[in-house]
Amino acid sequence: MSTARPLAVPEGSPFGPDNLPYGVFSTAADPRRRIGVALGEHVLDAGAAAAAVRAPAETAALLSAASLDPLLAAGRPVWTRVRAALTEWVTEPRYAEAVRPCLLPRADAELHLPFTVADYVDFYASEHHAANVGRIFRPQGEPLTENWKHLPIGYHGRAGTVVVSGTPVVRPCGQRREQPGRPPSYGPSLRLDLEAEVAFVVGAPSAQGGRVALGEADEHVFGVCLLNDWSARDLQAWEYVPLGPFLGKSFATSLSPWVVPLDALAHARTAPPPRTTALLPYLDDTATPPAGLDLALEMRINGHLVSRPPFAAMYWTYAQMVAHLTVNGAGLRTGDLLGSGTVSGPGHGSRGALIELTHDGREPLELPDGSVRGYLADGDEVVVSATAPGPGGVRIGLGEVAGRVLPARP
Amino acid sequence: MSTARPLAVPEGSPFGPDNLPYGVFSTAADPRRRIGVALGEHVLDAGAAAAAVRAPAETAALLSAASLDPLLAAGRPVWTRVRAALTEWVTEPRYAEAVRPCLLPRADAELHLPFTVADYVDFYASEHHAANVGRIFRPQGEPLTENWKHLPIGYHGRAGTVVVSGTPVVRPCGQRREQPGRPPSYGPSLRLDLEAEVAFVVGAPSAQGGRVALGEADEHVFGVCLLNDWSARDLQAWEYVPLGPFLGKSFATSLSPWVVPLDALAHARTAPPPRTTALLPYLDDTATPPAGLDLALEMRINGHLVSRPPFAAMYWTYAQMVAHLTVNGAGLRTGDLLGSGTVSGPGHGSRGALIELTHDGREPLELPDGSVRGYLADGDEVVVSATAPGPGGVRIGLGEVAGRVLPARP
Repeated sequence: MSTARPLAVPEGSPFGPDNLPYGVFSTAADPRRRIGVALGEHVLDAGAAAAAVRAPAETAALLSAASLDPLLAAGRPVWTRVRAALTEWVTEPRYAEAVRPCLLPRADAELHLPFTVADYVDFYASEHHAANVGRIFRPQGEPLTENWKHLPIGYHGRAGTVVVSGTPVVRPCGQRREQPGRPPSYGPSLRLDLEAEVAFVVGAPSAQGGRVALGEADEHVFGVCLLNDWSARDLQAWEYVPLGPFLGKSFATSLSPWVVPLDALAHARTAPPPRTTALLPYLDDTATPPAGLDLALEMRINGHLVSRPPFAAMYWTYAQMVAHLTVNGAGLRTGDLLGSGTVSGPGHGSRGALIELTHDGREPLELPDGSVRGYLADGDEVVVSATAPGPGGVRIGLGEVAGRVLPARP
Repeated sequence: MSTARPLAVPEGSPFGPDNLPYGVFSTAADPRRRIGVALGEHVLDAGAAAAAVRAPAETAALLSAASLDPLLAAGRPVWTRVRAALTEWVTEPRYAEAVRPCLLPRADAELHLPFTVADYVDFYASEHHAANVGRIFRPQGEPLTENWKHLPIGYHGRAGTVVVSGTPVVRPCGQRREQPGRPPSYGPSLRLDLEAEVAFVVGAPSAQGGRVALGEADEHVFGVCLLNDWSARDLQAWEYVPLGPFLGKSFATSLSPWVVPLDALAHARTAPPPRTTALLPYLDDTATPPAGLDLALEMRINGHLVSRPPFAAMYWTYAQMVAHLTVNGAGLRTGDLLGSGTVSGPGHGSRGALIELTHDGREPLELPDGSVRGYLADGDEVVVSATAPGPGGVRIGLGEVAGRVLPARP
């Protein structure tokens, strides 16, 4: 008779037992969508595990759902209990025998959008990105608009075109204007870009008409994903005045499949950059726990590392995004997705979009395979990945958001 | 024994048998949300009627749902069949006896948001409104931005704060900047406005990656509502550069409870204004059936008529909105809501927002009760209503969207 052993996780795995991110998967053998938890090279079938260990009814019900929606809606005390239970199941020897049959190879799992996206809001929280893009889009003006240091600028994107990592992205068509004063032309975007972002997933809703204070954000924010906010710069440049980006962004937004709980990122907390402009009280985070996150992003095109955007350099925190979004009384809903905006650091090698890396295509990037990119070419595969510091020197993995560019449809 | 008579509808009712708009209602006696059809002073309990007349299973199932979502998703051939069936039930004497018990006084019905709002997109389709607002927001520049005549400008709004008519609207707080160059202050909006709009409700989805041509729009657009896009002009003016309106709009958007089927508006079809700029082929509507709509709006504050915005003056049509929205491959979802933007005509008395009627508050409006309004005051009730030409001289009612302004929360 075998002695129960803890479940094997490769040394240094970014999906070790300190992470336990949630996703939704199916397999060829069993096409039901169900909740999975990434563990090493495996996916734990969370509902099956809950049944195997005879979990309490509430935990079992939440983990047996077809999406994360009920778990997200349940709120922080429940998130804490469910995470504590999962941690026990995957670390305590007494559970190993029951839980082991619920592990599937990650390679066999097809991953799906893990929750229903309610409203998708995209912010613009990197000072470096905003200034770099400002110089390109508005060469006559100041790089940062006057409001930038006073509030986390954001806008609503298209929730209906958020797709899970791995979904191919068709090059969009639309109106571009090659020369000022000339009429626009129609055709495939000639300046297709990516934006490496971090996204915050809202779990517990907030009351319509109420406000969420900075210190209350963690009661509502469940976890973190990676996001690629694909951007057709030529469509965007022509359309965005005065009401903001629309078709330049709305064709697709890719989301990583694993939602890393905020609880797994406790060791990544860090102070945001010093505030150089005094903030109104509802955004003043000098007296609240730090809500910056030291996430290290990597951006690859066709396997070549092209940038290492540091999320710790972001000026505005997720807590400020939530406080700002709700200060006018707008309620949060379960599944609201808050993108950070492009993550760009101060140096050239830390910029999270090609528009910045190539100065709007004028200084193309040379890839190690000898090819050059002003913007994305058909067939390019873009992968954004990230890790964060965990306990005892381990890294917490956020996984990746990947997508390949397909040619425009005729 | 009584002879079956057709159901009584008051002469000239805007909810006569040529209209048959759909909504969702409940009553104090029966709090289940169910589909209703407005008829004269009554609501027809559509699911009950389907049962009473022994309707075919598909029709009965769609009309017995708790929201319009399944009916919206079913597509135009089904919409036509269901509408034809309803028309028979309320006009043919042989059905009167069965249907009459399914009529409730409209005054007893509490009306709810009739469908799940997927993405909410707001356009900017009135040339008069865009030019008037452009003069106020950008006094140095041309009234219309360069792109305005080339594409229907739009942006995504907050779907989660779309509320049904009658829901009170709390004055939002946020950042306002009183003087250029000074830091912003925080507090209740001092320039709270309404925007009288028409909204198009998407029923049948379109394929992600596909495009909906101008002539195909009617396969996807189910019907029409009225919408008040409440706007805090001071918040909006400070925040909207460069990514567009956000908190200035996201606190609440009110929607009328009755969705008037596009089929009921056949007599309202009209050609849009002459196009003064050549359009790219995907927007060129010179060879497609007219998609302008001759809807006559009325805007009231505390019962006083303050404007009569003419929807026939709108430059961009709903077909162009759909064609533009999808030209980049973005799919439509059931429940997408497309706002027209403020409906303003050429004359002073036809403007659909106070910012235009009062020149940003500088020329306050005098109401017949002697009070003046630069912008909305706490306690003000705003009602936007509309009618359209129907067959034989009758008017088709779109009902109204109403909302009262409550004071800001401390």
